[in-house]
Amino acid sequence: MKIFNPLQTVTSLSRNEPKKIGLSPGSLVHVGEQKVERPIFSFIDYTSEEFQLAKDVPFAECLRLKDKASVSWINLDGVHDPSQVEAFGKAFDLHPLALEDILNTGHPPKLEEYDNCVLIITKLFFFDQQTCQIQAEQISLVLTVSNVLTFQEQPGDIFDELRERLKRKSGRIRQRGADYLAYTMIDSVVDSYFHVLEKIGDRLDQLENELISQPSQELLQQIHQMKSQLIFLRKSIWPMREVAAKMLQNESELFDESTTVFLRDLYDHAVQVLDTVESFRETASGLVDLYMSSVSQRMNEVMRVLTVMASIFIPLTFIAGIYGMNFELMPELKWRYGYPMVWGLMVLCAMGLLWFFKRKKWF
Amino acid sequence: MKIFNPLQTVTSLSRNEPKKIGLSPGSLVHVGEQKVERPIFSFIDYTSEEFQLAKDVPFAECLRLKDKASVSWINLDGVHDPSQVEAFGKAFDLHPLALEDILNTGHPPKLEEYDNCVLIITKLFFFDQQTCQIQAEQISLVLTVSNVLTFQEQPGDIFDELRERLKRKSGRIRQRGADYLAYTMIDSVVDSYFHVLEKIGDRLDQLENELISQPSQELLQQIHQMKSQLIFLRKSIWPMREVAAKMLQNESELFDESTTVFLRDLYDHAVQVLDTVESFRETASGLVDLYMSSVSQRMNEVMRVLTVMASIFIPLTFIAGIYGMNFELMPELKWRYGYPMVWGLMVLCAMGLLWFFKRKKWF
Amino acid sequence: MKIFNPLQTVTSLSRNEPKKIGLSPGSLVHVGEQKVERPIFSFIDYTSEEFQLAKDVPFAECLRLKDKASVSWINLDGVHDPSQVEAFGKAFDLHPLALEDILNTGHPPKLEEYDNCVLIITKLFFFDQQTCQIQAEQISLVLTVSNVLTFQEQPGDIFDELRERLKRKSGRIRQRGADYLAYTMIDSVVDSYFHVLEKIGDRLDQLENELISQPSQELLQQIHQMKSQLIFLRKSIWPMREVAAKMLQNESELFDESTTVFLRDLYDHAVQVLDTVESFRETASGLVDLYMSSVSQRMNEVMRVLTVMASIFIPLTFIAGIYGMNFELMPELKWRYGYPMVWGLMVLCAMGLLWFFKRKKWF
Amino acid sequence: MKIFNPLQTVTSLSRNEPKKIGLSPGSLVHVGEQKVERPIFSFIDYTSEEFQLAKDVPFAECLRLKDKASVSWINLDGVHDPSQVEAFGKAFDLHPLALEDILNTGHPPKLEEYDNCVLIITKLFFFDQQTCQIQAEQISLVLTVSNVLTFQEQPGDIFDELRERLKRKSGRIRQRGADYLAYTMIDSVVDSYFHVLEKIGDRLDQLENELISQPSQELLQQIHQMKSQLIFLRKSIWPMREVAAKMLQNESELFDESTTVFLRDLYDHAVQVLDTVESFRETASGLVDLYMSSVSQRMNEVMRVLTVMASIFIPLTFIAGIYGMNFELMPELKWRYGYPMVWGLMVLCAMGLLWFFKRKKWF
Amino acid sequence: MKIFNPLQTVTSLSRNEPKKIGLSPGSLVHVGEQKVERPIFSFIDYTSEEFQLAKDVPFAECLRLKDKASVSWINLDGVHDPSQVEAFGKAFDLHPLALEDILNTGHPPKLEEYDNCVLIITKLFFFDQQTCQIQAEQISLVLTVSNVLTFQEQPGDIFDELRERLKRKSGRIRQRGADYLAYTMIDSVVDSYFHVLEKIGDRLDQLENELISQPSQELLQQIHQMKSQLIFLRKSIWPMREVAAKMLQNESELFDESTTVFLRDLYDHAVQVLDTVESFRETASGLVDLYMSSVSQRMNEVMRVLTVMASIFIPLTFIAGIYGMNFELMPELKWRYGYPMVWGLMVLCAMGLLWFFKRKKWF
Ligand SMILES: [Mg+2]
Ligand SMILES: [Mg+2]
Ligand SMILES: [Mg+2]
Ligand SMILES: [Mg+2]
Ligand SMILES: [Mg+2]
Ligand SMILES: [Mg+2]
Ligand SMILES: [Mg+2]
Ligand SMILES: [Mg+2]
Ligand SMILES: [Mg+2]
Ligand SMILES: [Mg+2]
Ligand SMILES: [Mg+2]
Ligand SMILES: [Mg+2]
Ligand SMILES: [Mg+2]
Ligand SMILES: [Mg+2]
Ligand SMILES: [Mg+2]
Ligand SMILES: [Mg+2]
Ligand SMILES: [Mg+2]
Ligand SMILES: [Mg+2]
Ligand SMILES: [Mg+2]
Ligand SMILES: [Mg+2]
Ligand SMILES: [Mg+2]
Ligand SMILES: [Mg+2]
Ligand SMILES: [Mg+2]
Ligand SMILES: [Mg+2]
Ligand SMILES: [Mg+2]
Ligand SMILES: [Mg+2]
Ligand SMILES: [Mg+2]
Ligand SMILES: [Mg+2]
Ligand SMILES: [Mg+2]
Ligand SMILES: [Mg+2]
Ligand SMILES: [Mg+2]
Repeated sequence: MKIFNPLQTVTSLSRNEPKKIGLSPGSLVHVGEQKVERPIFSFIDYTSEEFQLAKDVPFAECLRLKDKASVSWINLDGVHDPSQVEAFGKAFDLHPLALEDILNTGHPPKLEEYDNCVLIITKLFFFDQQTCQIQAEQISLVLTVSNVLTFQEQPGDIFDELRERLKRKSGRIRQRGADYLAYTMIDSVVDSYFHVLEKIGDRLDQLENELISQPSQELLQQIHQMKSQLIFLRKSIWPMREVAAKMLQNESELFDESTTVFLRDLYDHAVQVLDTVESFRETASGLVDLYMSSVSQRMNEVMRVLTVMASIFIPLTFIAGIYGMNFELMPELKWRYGYPMVWGLMVLCAMGLLWFFKRKKWF
Repeated sequence: MKIFNPLQTVTSLSRNEPKKIGLSPGSLVHVGEQKVERPIFSFIDYTSEEFQLAKDVPFAECLRLKDKASVSWINLDGVHDPSQVEAFGKAFDLHPLALEDILNTGHPPKLEEYDNCVLIITKLFFFDQQTCQIQAEQISLVLTVSNVLTFQEQPGDIFDELRERLKRKSGRIRQRGADYLAYTMIDSVVDSYFHVLEKIGDRLDQLENELISQPSQELLQQIHQMKSQLIFLRKSIWPMREVAAKMLQNESELFDESTTVFLRDLYDHAVQVLDTVESFRETASGLVDLYMSSVSQRMNEVMRVLTVMASIFIPLTFIAGIYGMNFELMPELKWRYGYPMVWGLMVLCAMGLLWFFKRKKWF
Repeated sequence: MKIFNPLQTVTSLSRNEPKKIGLSPGSLVHVGEQKVERPIFSFIDYTSEEFQLAKDVPFAECLRLKDKASVSWINLDGVHDPSQVEAFGKAFDLHPLALEDILNTGHPPKLEEYDNCVLIITKLFFFDQQTCQIQAEQISLVLTVSNVLTFQEQPGDIFDELRERLKRKSGRIRQRGADYLAYTMIDSVVDSYFHVLEKIGDRLDQLENELISQPSQELLQQIHQMKSQLIFLRKSIWPMREVAAKMLQNESELFDESTTVFLRDLYDHAVQVLDTVESFRETASGLVDLYMSSVSQRMNEVMRVLTVMASIFIPLTFIAGIYGMNFELMPELKWRYGYPMVWGLMVLCAMGLLWFFKRKKWF
Repeated sequence: MKIFNPLQTVTSLSRNEPKKIGLSPGSLVHVGEQKVERPIFSFIDYTSEEFQLAKDVPFAECLRLKDKASVSWINLDGVHDPSQVEAFGKAFDLHPLALEDILNTGHPPKLEEYDNCVLIITKLFFFDQQTCQIQAEQISLVLTVSNVLTFQEQPGDIFDELRERLKRKSGRIRQRGADYLAYTMIDSVVDSYFHVLEKIGDRLDQLENELISQPSQELLQQIHQMKSQLIFLRKSIWPMREVAAKMLQNESELFDESTTVFLRDLYDHAVQVLDTVESFRETASGLVDLYMSSVSQRMNEVMRVLTVMASIFIPLTFIAGIYGMNFELMPELKWRYGYPMVWGLMVLCAMGLLWFFKRKKWF
Repeated sequence: MKIFNPLQTVTSLSRNEPKKIGLSPGSLVHVGEQKVERPIFSFIDYTSEEFQLAKDVPFAECLRLKDKASVSWINLDGVHDPSQVEAFGKAFDLHPLALEDILNTGHPPKLEEYDNCVLIITKLFFFDQQTCQIQAEQISLVLTVSNVLTFQEQPGDIFDELRERLKRKSGRIRQRGADYLAYTMIDSVVDSYFHVLEKIGDRLDQLENELISQPSQELLQQIHQMKSQLIFLRKSIWPMREVAAKMLQNESELFDESTTVFLRDLYDHAVQVLDTVESFRETASGLVDLYMSSVSQRMNEVMRVLTVMASIFIPLTFIAGIYGMNFELMPELKWRYGYPMVWGLMVLCAMGLLWFFKRKKWF
């Protein structure tokens, strides 16, 4: 799984692009890392009455489902092999530009309508609590009249609960078409963002606490990293709102009208996620201010200690220096109480300065 | 009552969401804390002629009011029990997505129209002057043709004055329908925001005064906390404006046309609240600047004291050091007025430096 | 007259609101301070031929003008007595919500159309050069077919020149209707903002000059106060632009079409005022930066003095300390030119350091 | 010529306004400084065949051109005399509000359509490289069917090249109407902004170089001044974009359709100027950051020198102080190699500290 | 090739403009540097059947292609010679304003429709990894019914792969018209931006790493330079989005409808580039914060060392100074264990201070 360092992200995003300048648009080149050994096909096929699930099947078997009236969900884990994706795409009449976007795993989310299908690109995020970094996986979804095709970078996703619901004959989802299946998937993706946000919120709380107890340069780097990740998250989730909005406008065609109220709910959630990301960014900025002032405050303390120590002892040392001079004629040196008097003078002097610093509340 | 730490807010907001990824949309799960022991139903039922108020009644009795032509306000305190809310919702034909939002006490304000009703989610805020934190309670309101259903997290609200008005037969409100009752509730909610803002304004004044007299790291944390809370408030009140705007556009249907002028007034107030929150945020940002410069200024003062002390005494100590040397041939040591002359030199030197620092206005 | 400390403003703005939560909308409660002993009515009544002016008249006499075809300007100084305002309002068929806004002296500017009249709320600002604070007075204006009603918080306004023009039979204003009179008043209000801006501009110039010559914590507080006041001004003047825009759109109804070109001019001026407030805010922000760097620069200077003094004398004192040691065998002490040689060494050492600091341009 | 200190600008802009509160709208009062001794009229009158140029002519002679079919450009240098401008304006049927704007030399650029003419207010800027300040002159232009009237604050402008082109019978401009003449003038004005921007760009480059080599408080003030001037420029040029946009929409009426492509070019240039001003402002803000960090860096250096000097010599002085004590029983004082051993100890100690600081890369 | 220092850019952009104030619009003046010795014409001419490529041909030969039905791509390297460009432009009926823009190599990207052609101005960027500066070259493209004219500042571009594709008879591009050729070029240009962004991303990563290990003033200047370059990039790429949007709207005319899906893809990429530039700018701003805090942290460390050293040795030196005084009556001096006792006192004192500083975690 690719680690999404915001900078490296963009870098790796375009790592293979150089070969592409001047290439024919729609040329199929995989952009990203290979995350799985070989592409694996699996499918679920159902009507309100029947249900069939198959894992790691040959491609030909999937193709058989193409024009069946039942709802078919065909999933491909592993998109690093352009020829495989191209074959799959051609079999299902996908546009070369759609395939190009599916292969570019650094593509921001989008919804694109083609003549015979809708392409929806989404991102799954995982927050690695060890490294405090966000990892991303691109999930591309193609909705046709009766099929949903999904393309994942690697096996493992958040759709297990959904698969359970599909198995149950009684569920609402078994009564409805491919559009409702697609909606449910996008809804699951958006719901999963709340998980990531929860973990980021915990991390921000933790950073704030550490900052107050012990500000360190390292901590600031972690805040900086968190800010960079939030910039990246916002950049990646922002287009999800537009995806939801387009699905909402889109109702008349592939999406059944009865799905509208669900799509509005989806849009709501996308907006809520974005608002939260935005308020996290403001909080992280506030943490930087808090850090800076914390450092200043500590410097102040250091300087106060130095100033108090130096200001008290320097005059005393001067007095001692005076009576360390070797002049032949220094009457005080011969006084009987000269030495205690000097001590008295020093104590007075020190107490005066202490009183002065106390009044200034320097300690 | 839940304490709305902006970060913990979002965290707790999504605390129960994990179970929901891939669940059927509209699955009823309570999000938030349980704040009351058991759900309590109460209602007020009135026409221009009659008035009836009942507290802690069984659910069945409320149901009886559903299709009565009189205006019925049914209130539920406690939304932690999904099955109870679901039963209530089904009895009144509410959409599952509406019930899902009612149970999610971290939902931002919104107005959603369904076929047979309008759902309005609002937030009540309380400013706890002990902890200087904002506490929130979600109040969801469903308006049907002749009924208003309200869902609160716990007993106690800001509608007591309203209940009094409903009792009085002479009041305008008794002459009008459920839409006017709903409007009056939202109006009360928005009016209550002015209370919270007043307290926050007082707190900001107080922080500013403390900042000037004695800047401390702790104070900055409190300003930071205040800023975070204002971010949270803005995020929560911003959608209230849209709620008011939608109510205004909505006039033709459930809201009677004669209510329009009142809705415009409501919109006005929502905008005014938001503008005030915004200007509070700018003020809080100004306080951070003030703090930083206050810290710098204090550091300056500390350094000036150190510099003046050190700069005056270090040369004097040097002079004393000179005549503390043990060279056999140091003619000055033998001069008759050597010692007073050195004193004179020292006084001159100190006065010169004092004059120099005075001219620089360093003390 | 109320002092508009931006924070206290909002506080006092909502000070009486608490009583209002759940009150009937349109309940008349005065929000603000009482600024005059008793409400005073006065009026001017004119046609192109006749002119009549009366001060401190009983309310009944004003009422007589209501349905007269002549243009009547009835002014009320003092809005602290809700019953008085209510009686006045009812006599002239004003909507309860209009009266509520008139009594709320913390209401932002707005234009609201009612069936039979237009309500325009404006603010007059005065810059108190003693305290450098902006004071505000709310002036509410109601335009009916042939009358203009104005509500002021206290006697004294900026309309004296206007009254003079009304007296002169030859002026254009005597030929025109109540709408032109209302326009002229709003125009005078906006023109008066240029006065306030001029004084604020002078104050900013002065702050900048003081900042450069002698930065102090107190000065920063004054800049902070100025920024807060500019935030308040912007918040209060911003809606004036919308008022002007609404008047412009409104031409067909109460405002005669021939007034349009004048309203466009009014809108122009409102925009110009806002742009100036905005650029003042940016300038004030620049002053904060200037202050911070000024403080840093001074700290730099203090540290340079300390460093130069300490770095020069500490090695010299060390040398003196060496020859102040009491070892029995220290050959230098017995050299004939030991003492002058040490002096030479010290002078060399000091000169080397001076050259070093000079090269670094530290003094 | 008035010096446009952004603050003084607004101040002086409204300096004469006080007299105007409540004055009749369209009252003619000059706002600004008198920059020329007496108003001077001059004109150019041409058709494709004929050409006539006259300088310093009596007003009556200009009036003669009013209804001539030829294109007439009448220029007035000096707008400080309201009666003169009023007479001119009345003769050419200008609206009083148009004349008011022409006399107000602090008016932002605008385009206003009247029944019989179009008023365009523009600003000329000059960058005084001595004082590094921007000076402005208002040029107001009135376009009628066959005439262009221009009002300048003082003689001297950027239209000399244009006058040359008008003289040449072959030029395209002689074939076209007054609208093309007006367009050409506005185009020249916008082109002249590139000159000013070039000089400001040079100045910013210079400030950046000085900042790096020798940051000083004075330099920061110059950057601050530059920022203020850019705020002013943006505020003044921003409406020029709208002027260009309005000219573009306006094509159907006074502007001939064949001028459209030229107006689009004009709009392009206005946008380009604004973008450049905006990027200059961001650059200037970056310079403030650079300055602040430069100051911090220098402070760091100063502190490092102090710390290294003090940390090395303070322990050595302590050691010398030890052996300067006068105890009767201090065996070391009597050792044969006591003195050289102490020297050895001191050298070791100093070298240890030097190594420590070296490793920290403090020098 | 011109080095695009953002400031120098604007400066040089307008360097030749001064001559142009008042010049006829459309006057041809080259703005920018001459980058090639003499203008060089080359062309590619193809149908689905035939293909012809010629380099460095006389202008007349190009002209021959003008009205041929085949698709002709005529390229001119070197636009410093206005007369050459004018001759070329006139031969192909280009509008003088189009030619003016082509000659102004500082023109921001734009798409302008003329009666017979479309002008598209684009920028090529190169990131010089030696100087870390972005270099730009303007490529202007004119699309007519069957021809594409390109104007480059110098030989060498990113179209080599495209030329290869054109040679191959089998490619899709050979089947399609001039509009598809133009689209492919713009697509190549936008694709090339990903290269530049990749290199900038690498550079930002590198700057971040250097910043953490060794912050220096020089590094900050490099970050400042990077920020300036990103400001410039954004300013230059922003209009590219509008170019893509205009191409998309434009479909009906010169662009064939079947190209729409490709244009939407192009628009997508332009948005993606802009988002990345924006997030780079935010990252660069974060680096400045990181630098500032890094400097503060180091200062803190320096001050802590100074404070610890001074605070420990200054009291010890004072004690030594006490017993260096020459009073006749100082009993301690005669005590047998006076000297060791003083040592003991000193050690205790030093250890106490060390414990104090340890507890404060100052080392
Ligand atoms: Mg491509
Ligand atoms: Mg991306
Ligand atoms: Mg997966
Ligand atoms: Mg959901
Ligand atoms: Mg990073
Ligand atoms: Mg929902
Ligand atoms: Mg869900
Ligand atoms: Mg929330
Ligand atoms: Mg409650
Ligand atoms: Mg209200
Ligand atoms: Mg917090
Ligand atoms: Mg109101
Ligand atoms: Mg109310
Ligand atoms: Mg207010
Ligand atoms: Mg008054
Ligand atoms: Mg006016
Ligand atoms: Mg204040
Ligand atoms: Mg005007
Ligand atoms: Mg006026
Ligand atoms: Mg101005
Ligand atoms: Mg002039
Ligand atoms: Mg131009
Ligand atoms: Mg200034
Ligand atoms: Mg052009
Ligand atoms: Mg030009
Ligand atoms: Mg440019
Ligand atoms: Mg080239
Ligand atoms: Mg592309
Ligand atoms: Mg630069
Ligand atoms: Mg694509
Ligand atoms: Mg800052």
